[in-house]
Amino acid sequence: MSIPVRVLGIDPGLRRTGWGVVTATGSTLAYGDCGVVTSDGDLPLALRLRELHEGISRIVQTFRPDEVAVEETFVNKDAQATLKLGHARAIALLVPALAGVPVFEYAANLIKKTVCGSGHAEKVQVQAMVRFLLPKAEFKVADAADALAIAITHVNHRGAHALKQAHLPAGVSGPAAARIAAALARQG
Amino acid sequence: MSIPVRVLGIDPGLRRTGWGVVTATGSTLAYGDCGVVTSDGDLPLALRLRELHEGISRIVQTFRPDEVAVEETFVNKDAQATLKLGHARAIALLVPALAGVPVFEYAANLIKKTVCGSGHAEKVQVQAMVRFLLPKAEFKVADAADALAIAITHVNHRGAHALKQAHLPAGVSGPAAARIAAALARQG
Repeated sequence: MSIPVRVLGIDPGLRRTGWGVVTATGSTLAYGDCGVVTSDGDLPLALRLRELHEGISRIVQTFRPDEVAVEETFVNKDAQATLKLGHARAIALLVPALAGVPVFEYAANLIKKTVCGSGHAEKVQVQAMVRFLLPKAEFKVADAADALAIAITHVNHRGAHALKQAHLPAGVSGPAAARIAAALARQG
Repeated sequence: MSIPVRVLGIDPGLRRTGWGVVTATGSTLAYGDCGVVTSDGDLPLALRLRELHEGISRIVQTFRPDEVAVEETFVNKDAQATLKLGHARAIALLVPALAGVPVFEYAANLIKKTVCGSGHAEKVQVQAMVRFLLPKAEFKVADAADALAIAITHVNHRGAHALKQAHLPAGVSGPAAARIAAALARQG
């Protein structure tokens, strides 16, 4: 019998960070919840990051995910945009790490490939596949659908990832390492 | 009689984040302490950001600065380097914001201009001027000297900044706003 694993997917953005929760029991996927965390563009950057921190912290506390998956930043030619995304992404990585939850990163094209079968799928195709895989999902914004796609991607790749993450450097211990060991034992 | 204001300067970097504390009493500047917070390059990014978060949190708790100054990221052509810096910088901005301490940002050329008189000063000139302005400062690495230069820059610009920050959007309140009001009253 498989033990359910709750996965939180995060699609980071300074203005809007999408999030989505799914539960995988063996090969069965169940929709949990999804939404967006926003920050007020009129505030100084430090206070916007605090807003994202508070919002993501609330979600981690509410859903207590076993594992978190975050989209890797697509580095484009607009350096200022890349930098803004880097700021938001740091918060998305930090919050679960502080809570001792293992964090995994996935490139945008791997997410598209996993969910749609092609690394060059359009946004609407991703949304359609998320609706197909999670019929109960209710999302109003693309960022929430993207976050669910990230969570689905992690469910599909987590076996290999958990094994890789288990080879942690000697200095790493604490809740994260313990959870990884538990995840490995579960898969055993 | 002027009330002393303790300023923490931060020069963010993923591998090494420099920090420096100075106290300004009227126009008199006194050296507090300085150093670097490091993260282990062998760890996953989320755990490296947690290390920076823990290190910077310890410094904020130890020195309890009234205000924090962070260097603005220099956006260069290396998008990957810009992104890494963005991750580290987000933590440098977040930690004081979570503690309710006002955070200010300064461009690298303004820091050089304030400390050395030229926005194109070399690193060694910045270090020499920091040694001149803070004879008691002991720093072994350039990042710590840069952080002290950032703190000195804030001391020189904080009057104008505090006035600007006082015009906060209606939604902003709490410790940060209270401290800004206190800082303004002090300057009164």
